[in-house]
Amino acid sequence: MPDTERTDSARLEAFSDGVFAVVITLLALDLKPELTDSARDSHALLWQLAARWPTWLAFVTSFSTVLIMWIDHHGLLKFVRRVDTPVLFANGLLMLLTTLVPFTTALLSAHLTEPSGSMAGALYSGLFVLINGAFNLLWHLLRRQALPGALEQRLTWHYRLGFPVYLVATLVALWRLPLSLVLCAGMWALWSANMRPVHDGA
Amino acid sequence: MPDTERTDSARLEAFSDGVFAVVITLLALDLKPELTDSARDSHALLWQLAARWPTWLAFVTSFSTVLIMWIDHHGLLKFVRRVDTPVLFANGLLMLLTTLVPFTTALLSAHLTEPSGSMAGALYSGLFVLINGAFNLLWHLLRRQALPGALEQRLTWHYRLGFPVYLVATLVALWRLPLSLVLCAGMWALWSANMRPVHDGA
Amino acid sequence: MPDTERTDSARLEAFSDGVFAVVITLLALDLKPELTDSARDSHALLWQLAARWPTWLAFVTSFSTVLIMWIDHHGLLKFVRRVDTPVLFANGLLMLLTTLVPFTTALLSAHLTEPSGSMAGALYSGLFVLINGAFNLLWHLLRRQALPGALEQRLTWHYRLGFPVYLVATLVALWRLPLSLVLCAGMWALWSANMRPVHDGA
Amino acid sequence: MPDTERTDSARLEAFSDGVFAVVITLLALDLKPELTDSARDSHALLWQLAARWPTWLAFVTSFSTVLIMWIDHHGLLKFVRRVDTPVLFANGLLMLLTTLVPFTTALLSAHLTEPSGSMAGALYSGLFVLINGAFNLLWHLLRRQALPGALEQRLTWHYRLGFPVYLVATLVALWRLPLSLVLCAGMWALWSANMRPVHDGA
Repeated sequence: MPDTERTDSARLEAFSDGVFAVVITLLALDLKPELTDSARDSHALLWQLAARWPTWLAFVTSFSTVLIMWIDHHGLLKFVRRVDTPVLFANGLLMLLTTLVPFTTALLSAHLTEPSGSMAGALYSGLFVLINGAFNLLWHLLRRQALPGALEQRLTWHYRLGFPVYLVATLVALWRLPLSLVLCAGMWALWSANMRPVHDGA
Repeated sequence: MPDTERTDSARLEAFSDGVFAVVITLLALDLKPELTDSARDSHALLWQLAARWPTWLAFVTSFSTVLIMWIDHHGLLKFVRRVDTPVLFANGLLMLLTTLVPFTTALLSAHLTEPSGSMAGALYSGLFVLINGAFNLLWHLLRRQALPGALEQRLTWHYRLGFPVYLVATLVALWRLPLSLVLCAGMWALWSANMRPVHDGA
Repeated sequence: MPDTERTDSARLEAFSDGVFAVVITLLALDLKPELTDSARDSHALLWQLAARWPTWLAFVTSFSTVLIMWIDHHGLLKFVRRVDTPVLFANGLLMLLTTLVPFTTALLSAHLTEPSGSMAGALYSGLFVLINGAFNLLWHLLRRQALPGALEQRLTWHYRLGFPVYLVATLVALWRLPLSLVLCAGMWALWSANMRPVHDGA
Repeated sequence: MPDTERTDSARLEAFSDGVFAVVITLLALDLKPELTDSARDSHALLWQLAARWPTWLAFVTSFSTVLIMWIDHHGLLKFVRRVDTPVLFANGLLMLLTTLVPFTTALLSAHLTEPSGSMAGALYSGLFVLINGAFNLLWHLLRRQALPGALEQRLTWHYRLGFPVYLVATLVALWRLPLSLVLCAGMWALWSANMRPVHDGA
């Protein structure tokens, strides 16, 4: 039943797209402005917004990461024709961890300038270690399906690399938080460069 | 008009996927961190997060249940070619009850360690009794459509079983809350094992 | 370009389904439990939930109305092959008014038992007058496309009837709020009976 | 693989539709009523709602702008057959900026009647300058694909015009806020007139 199988993968994508879209939009909910008495003139308003730079930094970092995750998810499922029960559950685990991103982001932005910032940063990177694990699991389940050989090698390397890098970022956060965030950002740059042949139909 | 009929089922799925995706993401909204003065260092932060274990437990329990519900819904509609008005309303009832899951989850997590926990637990399981009833109704309306005979038997048993188990879990909650949660978790294990042949195209 | 035109209608449906799904799920956000000291035992919890009956009534009323709206929208677009700019804007107006339903619902549930309840009820029904107007506009733009003759008559009557009924419900709310809510509920019953031949492919 | 490529564009649309739908619905969250003691009778309730006119104005303005953005996005991707990595990232940037609209809207409605209103208005229009930039980038990447020649000219002009107009609106906001809002509203009127041939399949 090739027709049913295509529908199958389509609905998994629709559900995941819904979760990614809601998660990515909820990230911005944390920016909610509060009108304090001290922000009733233009300079005070600008100053108040600037003073919340940890919130902005955490928002852009998380948005970019979730966007890359969506692009990756897109790349993974693009060649998939058949979705079975283990794939549904592995994808479910990935979604569970993804819905936690707004929480760790809010945690990071609230604690970034406090002594507790290193722990918040470690939890933030730590969630990406788990998410990378879920991606590796999903990839392990899907790679048996027909994929051009060179691409399969590239993607396997792609997902495996994320795990140690995020793990290091988690440990580094406890010691030097900014370095940890740079490591996380470095992963996006690398991954987005690496995803190119997948999407460009090489 | 086979083309129109397929679109029909597709749009029911798109709407339901949207509701499931938003519900599953809203579950995580309840985790919102609050920066208290006592959580300004790393150990205090970890401790504060650990002290909220009822919230984490309720989050994982509800996420898993809604995920299984989505997988089940997916399995139910996979073989459906035609959607009529009673099906739209039965699905609507299922969606209404599903959007209440974040509410009963928040209720459970707020009351779990209070004397009122048993009542919150009973309301939590009680909602799943109603949801199971809505699933049975939907299944009753859909099973007349062409389905492989063995699968039909299996799914009928599958949905009927849920009703008494959740009913027992509801009553047990008033007396032994942890046992009730174990019963609910047991249902997922059973159902996910049981859904396998549906998705794997047996 | 029949292929492009189908995609066109598909994307209008996807966007509208997304709005309906988020609106219908946000309705339940208003149920958010608050743990007050007086609700720490089981009876107090039940009592507190029961005392919020206006919230429950408003939730079920609005959920049912939005569900019927979705089913109607589904019925309207089912036979549509071509979507032009006026249709996109008429649908946008419908979406704008739809996203206001959680607001008027929260207004009704907060004011139902206050002297201000009649005004809140009038605003609640008044929004449905506007929504019905938007549906009539959309139907006016779409009915020129091929539809079985008997169905066209039925749907025209269907949408026209809603306008005076909701208008009466709005005026009645200022005088007898419960009667107004009964009128609104009567419209669903009538409409869901009336939509049947549309979905059942008569 | 023409089949895979269509899926590709479909999923970009599904994700974007999800973000647009959630953003457009979240705009209404800011309307949340608060039951104050002074609003317990009908006149006080009406008065309280009327006193929040900046919130209503900001809601309608932002809703209309996001709706036009969705219609534009729809028009852009309608003729697209192939989506590559730069397009995914340009679209991601557009989504990031779009999820900020509820924030600048809430900022505008909170500050509109304060001395800080001009700065809030400049930030509000300034976000649309950035969004227009992202649209121009996306259009630049997509226009190489087959499009009827006259349409390409029209759309190029269409997107380029937005940039200086929103830039002027941003500067004007610091001096005359109402004039700035009129400029923003004028853009919708122009754009919606201009999009007509795209959607109507000219």
